[in-house]
Amino acid sequence: MERPRHQGMAKNTYMRWRLPLVCLLWEVAMIILFGVFVRFGPEADAHWEEEKQEMNLTSDIENDFYFRYPSFQDVHVMIFVGFGFLMTFLKRYGFGAVGFNFLLAAFGIQWALLMQGWFHSFKSGKILIGVENLINADFCVGSVCIAFGAILGKTSPIQLLIMTLFQVTLFAVNEYILLNLLHIKDAGGSMTIHTFGAYFGLTVTRILYRPNLEQSKDKQGSVYHSDLFAMIGTLYLWMYWPSFNSAISEHGDAQHRAAINTYCSLAACVLTTVAFSSMLQKKGKLDMVHIQNATLAGGVAVGTSAEMMLTPYGSLIVGFICGIVSTVGYVYLTPFLESRLHIQDTCGIHNLHAMPGLIGGIVGAITAAAATEDVYGKEGFIKAFDFTGTYRTRTPSVQGGFQAAGIVVSLLMAFAGGTLVGGSAAAQVPEDEESDVYHMHNPDKPASP
Amino acid sequence: MERPRHQGMAKNTYMRWRLPLVCLLWEVAMIILFGVFVRFGPEADAHWEEEKQEMNLTSDIENDFYFRYPSFQDVHVMIFVGFGFLMTFLKRYGFGAVGFNFLLAAFGIQWALLMQGWFHSFKSGKILIGVENLINADFCVGSVCIAFGAILGKTSPIQLLIMTLFQVTLFAVNEYILLNLLHIKDAGGSMTIHTFGAYFGLTVTRILYRPNLEQSKDKQGSVYHSDLFAMIGTLYLWMYWPSFNSAISEHGDAQHRAAINTYCSLAACVLTTVAFSSMLQKKGKLDMVHIQNATLAGGVAVGTSAEMMLTPYGSLIVGFICGIVSTVGYVYLTPFLESRLHIQDTCGIHNLHAMPGLIGGIVGAITAAAATEDVYGKEGFIKAFDFTGTYRTRTPSVQGGFQAAGIVVSLLMAFAGGTLVGGSAAAQVPEDEESDVYHMHNPDKPASP
Amino acid sequence: MERPRHQGMAKNTYMRWRLPLVCLLWEVAMIILFGVFVRFGPEADAHWEEEKQEMNLTSDIENDFYFRYPSFQDVHVMIFVGFGFLMTFLKRYGFGAVGFNFLLAAFGIQWALLMQGWFHSFKSGKILIGVENLINADFCVGSVCIAFGAILGKTSPIQLLIMTLFQVTLFAVNEYILLNLLHIKDAGGSMTIHTFGAYFGLTVTRILYRPNLEQSKDKQGSVYHSDLFAMIGTLYLWMYWPSFNSAISEHGDAQHRAAINTYCSLAACVLTTVAFSSMLQKKGKLDMVHIQNATLAGGVAVGTSAEMMLTPYGSLIVGFICGIVSTVGYVYLTPFLESRLHIQDTCGIHNLHAMPGLIGGIVGAITAAAATEDVYGKEGFIKAFDFTGTYRTRTPSVQGGFQAAGIVVSLLMAFAGGTLVGGSAAAQVPEDEESDVYHMHNPDKPASP
Repeated sequence: MERPRHQGMAKNTYMRWRLPLVCLLWEVAMIILFGVFVRFGPEADAHWEEEKQEMNLTSDIENDFYFRYPSFQDVHVMIFVGFGFLMTFLKRYGFGAVGFNFLLAAFGIQWALLMQGWFHSFKSGKILIGVENLINADFCVGSVCIAFGAILGKTSPIQLLIMTLFQVTLFAVNEYILLNLLHIKDAGGSMTIHTFGAYFGLTVTRILYRPNLEQSKDKQGSVYHSDLFAMIGTLYLWMYWPSFNSAISEHGDAQHRAAINTYCSLAACVLTTVAFSSMLQKKGKLDMVHIQNATLAGGVAVGTSAEMMLTPYGSLIVGFICGIVSTVGYVYLTPFLESRLHIQDTCGIHNLHAMPGLIGGIVGAITAAAATEDVYGKEGFIKAFDFTGTYRTRTPSVQGGFQAAGIVVSLLMAFAGGTLVGGSAAAQVPEDEESDVYHMHNPDKPASP
Repeated sequence: MERPRHQGMAKNTYMRWRLPLVCLLWEVAMIILFGVFVRFGPEADAHWEEEKQEMNLTSDIENDFYFRYPSFQDVHVMIFVGFGFLMTFLKRYGFGAVGFNFLLAAFGIQWALLMQGWFHSFKSGKILIGVENLINADFCVGSVCIAFGAILGKTSPIQLLIMTLFQVTLFAVNEYILLNLLHIKDAGGSMTIHTFGAYFGLTVTRILYRPNLEQSKDKQGSVYHSDLFAMIGTLYLWMYWPSFNSAISEHGDAQHRAAINTYCSLAACVLTTVAFSSMLQKKGKLDMVHIQNATLAGGVAVGTSAEMMLTPYGSLIVGFICGIVSTVGYVYLTPFLESRLHIQDTCGIHNLHAMPGLIGGIVGAITAAAATEDVYGKEGFIKAFDFTGTYRTRTPSVQGGFQAAGIVVSLLMAFAGGTLVGGSAAAQVPEDEESDVYHMHNPDKPASP
Repeated sequence: MERPRHQGMAKNTYMRWRLPLVCLLWEVAMIILFGVFVRFGPEADAHWEEEKQEMNLTSDIENDFYFRYPSFQDVHVMIFVGFGFLMTFLKRYGFGAVGFNFLLAAFGIQWALLMQGWFHSFKSGKILIGVENLINADFCVGSVCIAFGAILGKTSPIQLLIMTLFQVTLFAVNEYILLNLLHIKDAGGSMTIHTFGAYFGLTVTRILYRPNLEQSKDKQGSVYHSDLFAMIGTLYLWMYWPSFNSAISEHGDAQHRAAINTYCSLAACVLTTVAFSSMLQKKGKLDMVHIQNATLAGGVAVGTSAEMMLTPYGSLIVGFICGIVSTVGYVYLTPFLESRLHIQDTCGIHNLHAMPGLIGGIVGAITAAAATEDVYGKEGFIKAFDFTGTYRTRTPSVQGGFQAAGIVVSLLMAFAGGTLVGGSAAAQVPEDEESDVYHMHNPDKPASP
C-alpha cells in the first residue's frame, strides 16, 4: 500500500518553474478578462429589487437561483467528485485522477464562463452571469473531464491545462453552432458534452499512442479500496444524472420531465449492464469496471431527449440498449481499439461517453422528429422546441434533421480539435512517461516539513 | 489487502446464464408494463402550460418539482450511497454490499413505480408519475435495502432480486392498507419502511439460518478503511434524514417541521449512543459499529411523528431513548437473537430499524392522539391529519388507535411476507454459501483484458 | 494497515464513567432547556395556514424552507463530512477525526440553537426556530470544528465537549456584538466563524503545548488511502462553499450573488495553490496537504463580502491572493509557529482559516466602505446593508469602520476564550497523551461480540 517513490528526475528543475508560471500567468489573464468583461446578471445584481418591479415579479422566489441552484450543486458534485473519483479505480492514478481533475476543472470553469459568455450572455460589452452560466461552465468542463479519462496517465498537468484551454474554446464554438445556428436542443449534452468530449479525447490519445504503455500493466491494476472509491464516483454520477439532464431545461414541466426520463433510463441500464457483465465474464462473475461505468450510459443516452416527451418507457428502452452496448464495448471494443487502432482508452470513455453520446444524439433527433402538437399541447409544443421568431415555421421533421446534423458537426469538431491538441502535445511529450503520476507528492509529516 | 480468489466453482455454468436471464427478462417486462401503464403526471407533461392556466398558477415555481426535488436527491443519496456504504464495514462484503444494493435498488424502483402507481396514481387506465412517485419508489426500495442488511452474505444476487420483487409488492399492499384503508399518517415510514422492512428481513434470515456461518467470523471482521467507508454511509444517512422524513409531507409548514424534528432527534441520539457505547464496552472505548448505526435510530423513530407537532424537545426525548435502546440492542440483543433464536442479523437491523421503527409507530400514535385544534390551529389540524371527506368526523384519539393498528398490520405483513420469501429461498439455497460474495470480480487490467 | 492496540490503560476505569455521564447529563439538560424555551417558528408551526393569510402569501413556496433548505443540507454536509473527512489525512487520527467531529457537532448544534436563539430568535419567552436557525447552529459548530483542527490528537472527547460548550457560548456572544451591536455584515462568517474559530483553537493548542508530541511524527504521517479520504472532505467543502456563503443571505439577488462570488474565488484559489505548492516543493511535485487545504482559502476569504457587490473579478483577485498566502503559510509559517511560538497546529488551520479569515474581514470592510447607491441601486443599497431604522443614516465608510472593528472584537474574544478553555483543559490534561486516539474501538466481529 506504500506509494512508490522515484528520486531525482532529470526534468524536474524545468517542471518546477513551468507549472507555476502557467498557473499564475493564466490566472492573471483570467482576472484581467473578468475585469473587462464579466459582471453580475440582472438576477444576481443588487439592482434586482428594481428589476423585479419592472418584470412584475411578486416574490424573490421567482429568481432563477431557486429554479436552478439545487441542480447546479448536484452537477458541481458530478464534475469534481463524480468524474474525479470514477477514475480512482486504477491503483496507480488515484491521486492524479482526483487532483488533476480538480486543477483542470477549476481553470476550465473560469475560461468557460468567458467563452460561453461571449457567445450567449454578451450584452452591451459585458458578459452578464448568473447561476445558469455556472451550470453551463460546469457542463463545458465536463467534456474536458471525459477527454481526460482517455489520456489518464499519459500527460503532464501542463499538457492537461493546455488541452483544457483548447477544448473549452472549441466546445463553446461547437455549442454555438448547434444551439444558435442549427437551433437544436441538447439540454443534457449528449452531443455537445459527451460525443464531442469523448471523440476529442480519443483523437488525442490516438496521437499520443505509446506502445510501451502496455508493459506497465501492473500499474493500471485495481485494488479493493480503489474500487470502493471508484464506486463513490459512479454512484454520485448515477444519482445526480437526473439533475444534470434537467439543470438547464425550461422552468416547470421540462425540468420535471427531464429528471424522470433520466431516472428511468439509468435504472434500466443497471439491469442490462449486470446481465451482460455476468454473461461475458468467465465463470459468470460481475466485472466491477462494468458496474462502475456502463451503468451510467443510460444517463448519457437521454441527454438530448430527456426534456422531450420521450416517456418513461421510451427511457427504459434507451437505458436497456445502452447498458448492453456499453458493456459489450468494454469486453470487445476497448481491446480492439488498442490493438488494432492504437487507441489506448484508459478509462473506456468510448463505451461510456462516445457510443452512448451518439445514441443520445440519434434518439434526440428521432424524438424531435416524432413530436406532435397532440402530444405536447399547442403551447407546450412551441415552448419545447422554441419554435418562435425565425423558427416559427420549422416542423418537427426538419428539427429532427437539424438535430442529426448536430451529431455530425460535433464529431467533426472533436476530430479536428483532438488532432490539433494531440499533435501539439505529441511534439512535447515528456520523456519520462510517468512524470504526471509522480507529480503529486505527500511528505511524511505534512504539517511541518 | 488482496482480495481472495476462488477458482472453478461448480455451479458457475448454471449461474452464468441464470442471472443474465433474470435481469434481461425482468427488464423487458418492466418496459412492457411501463409502455402499457406509465405516463407523465400533469406537472411533468408538456401540457402543463395549459394545466397551469386551468389551476390558476401564476408561476412555474408552483410545479411540485421545486417543492420536492432537492429532498428527492437527498433521499436518492441515502438509498444508494447511504445504505450501500453503511454495509461496507464488513471487510469481506464491501463489494457485494455496494454493488448488490445498487442492483436491487435499480430494479426495485421500477417495480415500485408500478406497484405504488397502481394503488395511488392510477387514473383512466394510466399511472401518472411525478417527482413524488420517484421519492415513494426510493422509499419502498429503502425497505428492501434494510432487509438486505439482515441477510448480507447469505444470498445470491438472483435471490436478492426475487426478494425485491416480493417485498416491493407486499410493501405496496401494506402501504395501501395503512395510508388508504386505515387513513393513517406515516410520512417518514417508521411503520411502512422500517418496521415492515426490518421484520421482513429478520424473518427471512431466521429461515435461512446457517449454523456454520459463525465459524467464518474472520470474514466478517472490520478493518480500518472499511470503517471510514462505512462512516460515509452513516453520515449521509444521518445528514439527509431530515430530507427523508420531510420529503413527502404536505407543502409548507409540514415539510419545514418534519426537517426540524428529525434534526433534533438525530442530534440527541448521537449523545446517548456515545454514552452507552462507552459505558458498555470494555475499557470505556467507543465501538465504531454503534457510532455507525445507533446514531441513526433517532431518524427512524420520528418517521411517523416528524411532520406532526412533536416539538423540538419531544424530538430530543425520542432521540435520547432510541440511542440507548439501539446501542443496548447491539451489545446484548444481537448475540441473544443469534444464539437463542437463530436469527443472524449481519448488520444489526433489529437495533437500527426494527426497534426504533416500532418506537416510531408508537410515538406517532401518541402524538396523533394528543393533537388538539389549539396546538395545530383550526385549518392546520384538518390539513395535518387530512380530516376531510369520509374522515371529517374522526377524532385525534380514534386516529391514534388507527395509527397503532398500522403497527400491527405492518408486523403481520412482514412476518407473512418474510416467511414466504425465506421459505422459497431456503428451497434453493446455494450449496456454496459464498457464491454471492465472489460474484463481484475485478480483473487486473480492466480496460483491456 | 493493522490498527495498533494498547491494552490495559490505567485511567480507563475513570474514563468509562466520565464520558457517559457527561453525555447523558448534558443531553438531559438540553431536553429540559428545549422544553422550557424552544418552539417552532411561525413558518414551521401548524398555524402557518393562518399566518400565510395574515402575511398575504399566495403560495406555500413562499415558506422560508424553500429558500434555504437546499443550502442548509449543503452546509450540513460540510460540517459533518467536509470537516470530518478533511482531518482523516493523518493516518493515526482517521477514526478520531470523523467520530469526535460527529460527537462535538451533534452536541454543539443543540447548544447553539439555544445560545443563538436567546440572542436572535427570542419572542415572548420562547425561542422560535426555523431552517435559518438550523443553518446558524451548523455555522456556529463549524467554528468549533475549525478549532478542533488545531488540537486534533491532544484532547480527550470530554475535553472536546467542554470546549464545544464554551466556544459555542462565546461564539454567540461575539456574533451578537458583531451583528446586533456593531450592525455589521458577515453572512459567510469570515470573522464570526473562521477568524474567531481559528484563533480560539490556536490559543488553546498553544496552552496545551507538548514538547514530546514532535517525537511521534510517524503517527501523524499520511498514507495513500487517507489522502483520498481527505480529498472527499476537501471537495465537499470546496463544492458546497457557495452554499455556505449564501445560506443566510437575503432572499433573491443576495443569495444568488454570494454563490457566484464564492464560486469564482474558489476557482482562482486552486490555480495559485497549485502554482505555489509546485514552486515551493522539492523537485516541483505537488503537496497533497496544500491541495487538500489551501484550495479552500478562497471560500473563507469572501465570507464577509460574497453577498456584497464584490464582482466576479474582485472574487478572483481575493482567491488568487489567498491561495498564495495559505500555501506559503503551510510551507514556512506552520513550522515557525511550532518551533518558535510553540503553537502545534495539527491541521494547519492558521493557513486555512485564520489568515484567510482576517483577509475576509478586511475585504469585507473595504467592499462595504466602497459601496455606492450607483452600484447597488437605491433600494438595493438599503437592503444590502440593512440601513434602516436606527442605522438609516449610516454611510458606507462608517460601515467599513464598524466592519473593521468586528475583526478586532472577534480576535479579542478568541484569545480570551481560548485562554480560558485552554487553561482549564491544561489543568486536567490526560497523562496518556494518546487517550483520545485509542478511544475509538472496533472489535473484530462487530455484530455479535
